[in-house]
Amino acid sequence: MTDINELPLTMLCERLADGRLSPSEIAHACLDHVEERNAELHAWAHLDREFALAQVREADARQAAGKRLSRLDGVPFGIKDNIDTEDFPTEMGSPIHQGRRPDADAWIVSALRGLGMVPLGKTVTTPFGMNAPAPTRNPLDPSLTLGASSVGSAAAVASGMVPITVNTQNTSSTTRPAAYAGVPAWKPTHDLLPLDGCLQLCPPTATVAFMARAVEDFALLAEALELKWPEPGEDAIDLARIAAVRGPWWGLAEPEAARAFDGFLGRVGIERDIPLGAQFEQALAAHRDLIAADMAVTLVEEFAQHRSQLPEEAVSFIEAGRALPATRYVKAMRLRGHLAAELEAAMGTCDALVTLSTPGPPPRMTEGIGDGTFSMPWTFMGLPTLSLPLLADPRGRPIGIQVIGRRNQDRTLLRIGRLLAGDKSIDCVSS
Amino acid sequence: MTDINELPLTMLCERLADGRLSPSEIAHACLDHVEERNAELHAWAHLDREFALAQVREADARQAAGKRLSRLDGVPFGIKDNIDTEDFPTEMGSPIHQGRRPDADAWIVSALRGLGMVPLGKTVTTPFGMNAPAPTRNPLDPSLTLGASSVGSAAAVASGMVPITVNTQNTSSTTRPAAYAGVPAWKPTHDLLPLDGCLQLCPPTATVAFMARAVEDFALLAEALELKWPEPGEDAIDLARIAAVRGPWWGLAEPEAARAFDGFLGRVGIERDIPLGAQFEQALAAHRDLIAADMAVTLVEEFAQHRSQLPEEAVSFIEAGRALPATRYVKAMRLRGHLAAELEAAMGTCDALVTLSTPGPPPRMTEGIGDGTFSMPWTFMGLPTLSLPLLADPRGRPIGIQVIGRRNQDRTLLRIGRLLAGDKSIDCVSS
Repeated sequence: MTDINELPLTMLCERLADGRLSPSEIAHACLDHVEERNAELHAWAHLDREFALAQVREADARQAAGKRLSRLDGVPFGIKDNIDTEDFPTEMGSPIHQGRRPDADAWIVSALRGLGMVPLGKTVTTPFGMNAPAPTRNPLDPSLTLGASSVGSAAAVASGMVPITVNTQNTSSTTRPAAYAGVPAWKPTHDLLPLDGCLQLCPPTATVAFMARAVEDFALLAEALELKWPEPGEDAIDLARIAAVRGPWWGLAEPEAARAFDGFLGRVGIERDIPLGAQFEQALAAHRDLIAADMAVTLVEEFAQHRSQLPEEAVSFIEAGRALPATRYVKAMRLRGHLAAELEAAMGTCDALVTLSTPGPPPRMTEGIGDGTFSMPWTFMGLPTLSLPLLADPRGRPIGIQVIGRRNQDRTLLRIGRLLAGDKSIDCVSS
Repeated sequence: MTDINELPLTMLCERLADGRLSPSEIAHACLDHVEERNAELHAWAHLDREFALAQVREADARQAAGKRLSRLDGVPFGIKDNIDTEDFPTEMGSPIHQGRRPDADAWIVSALRGLGMVPLGKTVTTPFGMNAPAPTRNPLDPSLTLGASSVGSAAAVASGMVPITVNTQNTSSTTRPAAYAGVPAWKPTHDLLPLDGCLQLCPPTATVAFMARAVEDFALLAEALELKWPEPGEDAIDLARIAAVRGPWWGLAEPEAARAFDGFLGRVGIERDIPLGAQFEQALAAHRDLIAADMAVTLVEEFAQHRSQLPEEAVSFIEAGRALPATRYVKAMRLRGHLAAELEAAMGTCDALVTLSTPGPPPRMTEGIGDGTFSMPWTFMGLPTLSLPLLADPRGRPIGIQVIGRRNQDRTLLRIGRLLAGDKSIDCVSS
């Protein structure tokens, strides 16, 4: 393992820009590290060393000729295996799609390749993104779960195999594995990035989402993608405009995690608290209604032809979805808009809310795969979130801080994330 | 009837700005004309002369003091009676809601009042916006239908009672009455304007929509509302970037109207034609699925308590919606996005499409209320449309040209509308 396996995107890009590093040096460091650790971690579903190196040689040539395509030209990235790629299979973690080769790259893959970024390969996803087993192991401690479903991406970033991965999230698929692996994640505002070519279990909540080595990497990526989002106001980021939120599901929080969260608020100096009424608990059932009906449509062929090979959770969602009346779906969609408006009003002048990413640190694999509830309501409402690896329990197991922004205010959210992560009084292990 | 009853918004605003007209002169001309003709036309469901005049006196004072709130300060407007108003009842055309008094103005009413505009009253809607009878008569010829559902607004604008009205559209509720009354209408891109306080039969397709005396009035209104929409490009509006579209539902077009449309294309010089595949016909059934399920939720109380007083069409939509599986709703929602993307691709470099607003001129009332199919697919896809009163049949009955823009390109659409309406070779009666 070299420095290259630990440097955040921002620093890799600086060194690519001034020539201290070449794309192939980065790629070799990544690929060597994959070779070293993948047999143990099972982060990658498909990886093609020769293909990656061929791409990298072109990036080297562009660097040498002073014709780089973007600040990210030559940076390798990983792609969750439920996102279509022309040059790798896309199997969605399921034997049903073994050897499936899409005709074209997903929009986001094509956009990143357009910046000169180099796809190393596909990272393991649990089958169809469900709460179901995968062979991937947590680099922090192989006895701990990574949750579901972007487990390969979390392991790849946490272990230093790749500086950034592109993923999806319909409920908690990026937030939870990132929190359990101790890496930062960004789930942008719903609809900020096109989802073409991604497995969309539930289009009303589905988003592309990223994991990287540092929170500032996301802003770099967003700038390079020229995302059209509102300019930040003139106001400086202000801790007084960040509030804690717990919500009616807070009872799930493990006592140690809840204490660590309280300690975090105290150290950072977040004093406000936004209480959420009991009606927000309806988000959980409504979210499941949307997932159920949408999955029944998305996976209609798989259900008809290969039901026995689908994860149990998928079958029960699909069966529920097939039985769901349209009026329940309509009510769920309206609740989504209604709660988002209510939360916006409750936030008042707040720019962001902080809460836990998960109810606690990653459970031992023998105890299950943890719980995704804490990211569900924000995903349901389409709000942008960050998960920041800012806390740990006394045994050193990571606990994520989830930061929730206003709709389309991702830029402000990323600035707040940087403030929270950069403050050294925050970036410490909770007692 | 005075000039004031015929001048478009743009000219009224010029005269208000330079003092040639006062708000009360305009209001009096409108109110006098209402008194003269409303017993015959039944355009207004509620009108409060004294309330309007009190508001106007304030606008007069602002004008006199040089403190006008906007270019539209003092301009009277009409409000479809399914849009909430604090100062008038909002009965949705139904005895079920007789005397209903909302607590607050709808967002759009509040926005227009914030510009200093003066609400004259509420215009007649067919009950709950359905294809159902209303007492309103067509000012062009009382034997002709106005269709459904913004009939009062169409009659009020066409007869010179008010220069602009605010309406809603879930299918064809503004386009059809405007076409049948021979007035211009603008249905903005779905989601461009908040719908809070409007009866939303079907939120995925519902929009606020306007009727006015001239197409340039809409741009004036949009500017005053400071709508956030993309700047137009540097390119001049170009007839070569406008294409005709007929679609798989074109068989409904009456031969005379189809001939008039062909003549229009020839005179204007529109040569391109965008063919739409048979899959676009699925939009019609999918749109009805959305309406059915959403209406079953929106009108759940009315259906439970007052079923016998609901229009027949509402009952059958609601019954269909209650029986609809969620998976059908999901498929309709996905088809919407899919067809919109396919149409966008088919448009290529085109800025707008033209088609008929309705399959023909307004039928005689004894023959029914006409057909809304021609505006349904664009409303389904959420695209902005104009209806322009540019054609007529040999007996002088109006036939509307519908102009369809790209999503969020309303500004370009309005410029194209002005080009099409302003060209005198177009603004003529077809033979």
